[in-house]
Amino acid sequence: MSEFKVTDTSGFEVTRNGISRALEYFAERGCCRLFVLSDPFLVSNGLAAQIEARNHNRFQISIYSDFFGEPKLTSVQAAMLAARAFNADAVLGIGGGSGLDMAKIVKTCINTGRDVADFVMQANQLPALNAQLPSVMIPTTAGTGSEASGTNILTLENGNKGWVWGPETRPDLALLDPHFSASLPANLTAWTGMDALVHAFEAASNRYTHQGAQLYAHQAIRLSVDALPKAVHSPDDLDARTDMLLASYYAGCAIHLCSTSIAHALSHALARLAPINHGLATALAFEITLPFVLAAETKDMQKAAAAFGVSELRAMPDALTQFMDRVGVERRLPEAFGKFSADDLMPVLRSDEIQPMREACVNYASDEQLFDFAKALLG
Amino acid sequence: MSEFKVTDTSGFEVTRNGISRALEYFAERGCCRLFVLSDPFLVSNGLAAQIEARNHNRFQISIYSDFFGEPKLTSVQAAMLAARAFNADAVLGIGGGSGLDMAKIVKTCINTGRDVADFVMQANQLPALNAQLPSVMIPTTAGTGSEASGTNILTLENGNKGWVWGPETRPDLALLDPHFSASLPANLTAWTGMDALVHAFEAASNRYTHQGAQLYAHQAIRLSVDALPKAVHSPDDLDARTDMLLASYYAGCAIHLCSTSIAHALSHALARLAPINHGLATALAFEITLPFVLAAETKDMQKAAAAFGVSELRAMPDALTQFMDRVGVERRLPEAFGKFSADDLMPVLRSDEIQPMREACVNYASDEQLFDFAKALLG
Repeated sequence: MSEFKVTDTSGFEVTRNGISRALEYFAERGCCRLFVLSDPFLVSNGLAAQIEARNHNRFQISIYSDFFGEPKLTSVQAAMLAARAFNADAVLGIGGGSGLDMAKIVKTCINTGRDVADFVMQANQLPALNAQLPSVMIPTTAGTGSEASGTNILTLENGNKGWVWGPETRPDLALLDPHFSASLPANLTAWTGMDALVHAFEAASNRYTHQGAQLYAHQAIRLSVDALPKAVHSPDDLDARTDMLLASYYAGCAIHLCSTSIAHALSHALARLAPINHGLATALAFEITLPFVLAAETKDMQKAAAAFGVSELRAMPDALTQFMDRVGVERRLPEAFGKFSADDLMPVLRSDEIQPMREACVNYASDEQLFDFAKALLG
Repeated sequence: MSEFKVTDTSGFEVTRNGISRALEYFAERGCCRLFVLSDPFLVSNGLAAQIEARNHNRFQISIYSDFFGEPKLTSVQAAMLAARAFNADAVLGIGGGSGLDMAKIVKTCINTGRDVADFVMQANQLPALNAQLPSVMIPTTAGTGSEASGTNILTLENGNKGWVWGPETRPDLALLDPHFSASLPANLTAWTGMDALVHAFEAASNRYTHQGAQLYAHQAIRLSVDALPKAVHSPDDLDARTDMLLASYYAGCAIHLCSTSIAHALSHALARLAPINHGLATALAFEITLPFVLAAETKDMQKAAAAFGVSELRAMPDALTQFMDRVGVERRLPEAFGKFSADDLMPVLRSDEIQPMREACVNYASDEQLFDFAKALLG
């Protein structure tokens, strides 16, 4: 039994009335100028009308959705400008991981008056919660767990990935409403769900894992194993959607407490070469690295495998492969990767930003080992 | 899947240096006048010297331990007077459920200038966290989970039990340090551990249970089943002590989220007749009421039984009986109960304060049913 901390856990609610609950939350706190940062997809599907129908003239509302794909520093800076110009006193994020990461950075840093860039890679201390705006996050994918974590990823101007990291960035409240994820197509449901599963497995088995994180991680694994195939094959199964939102939230809590590992090192590196869905990249990297990871044969790995439903550690890679088949993850990189080989990935895998995830793995992967993984991914 | 909330969760740390960590916590917050509320037993065993050795002249410290047994309103009032006279700016509670409940009420209400009685049974709104004193709780028994919950029990001047209830009363931080529970004798280890197990089982199976509370409750059940026999029979097994502190903390989170049930209705009623250890009363009441409770045969009960290691619901009462034998719970009330019969318990069981726990049970116990339970307990 090692020592560990489980602090600054934030709260969440499972609800079927996410927008009403969010507005109620802000109304209770006397807010009146609500900045909504949302995925463009939702906005073009009538989000403004949905919110207005529940507003009852309580809030001035500004809906912002001027971004695309994984967040760039410049997109977050633009969102911050808009929120400041609107003089927002509350922030509601509705989206996948990218939208929520942006909304979390806006609610955290808005009152500082400073450029977002000043807070990347912990260059400056983030403001305390009571110096921020009240915030609620509603995830529309069940995968990143951004609504639970203090991790916020963005792409810097030089193309590198950067992080705004800190427990201060966690929202006041996460609302898990399956109506928002029910329209997700099967492939995105599978990819994002795999991201949650990998978060949970890595947090439950890396060198920083502890019993406190495993409470969340094991439950996230159990929920994913049961609910992800249902969510993929019966998209309207709101119970399965809810279970996946819970799995994603719990997995987010787990990585907040003790980080990810080698599969995320590879998936973040892959994303530097060409655009790829983060969940897909992570799933492919997890399947390829799993036998190497499990060779450490720790008790923590056995417990994580048991939560997956596998009693013998050596049976875990096959069980994962069968599971990925069941949820329909095609083992194929997007076409844009056709021009890249393992040699292109290696410099990224050796870059500073990737090392913390590489080092989190109980088995340290040598450069030769990384090259083997890169070849398995890119040929 | 019903809707539910998991908010205002507080943080905890598993540590082997509880006092140092507590002092560090207060030092980081600029506190200088530390009010320590502790069980008399610890004070007579050198707690003051232990704290002073780690103080390094950072704090003025006042150690208060002028109470005995379950907290009375008058004891809390006296502790509050002392803390106010000392002009405390931080509160450290070290003790069993009684001491921690008192310390939590002191840290919550001290700045209001009002009598503690004004906050009993939600008569007045409790102050928000930022109007309270920074607080840390170190449990010395693994049972009540007071360090995790917003429930604080005291005996009123008329002999009735009263509650100061509210999430505002949760401490900033709970420190789980097995050194503090390792000296607990076997019978108290078993009784308090049974309290944690019953908290978890009731929270996992009553009519207010939900998946969020079950995350904590099921883990508390699993940990108790494994660790309680070890803690009883190998008192120096610090890993088992830690697991029981975790079980108690998680069970406290679970009842904070969705309450106890019928076994606690009976155990609180019993305590009105004569002094009895709360864990012992609860264990006896749980064993007697369990077949009635399980007759509702809900899925939640099946999941709770599975966490206990029992695959068929009907096997649960025998499994519990065997478990209580293994941890050495004698089925015997203290001698002072000799003069009471079931007829004496009935008016208490019908009193207002008991009804919320009675009503929490999925099967509602009629007066006749309660009388049968009372006879089984008192003859």
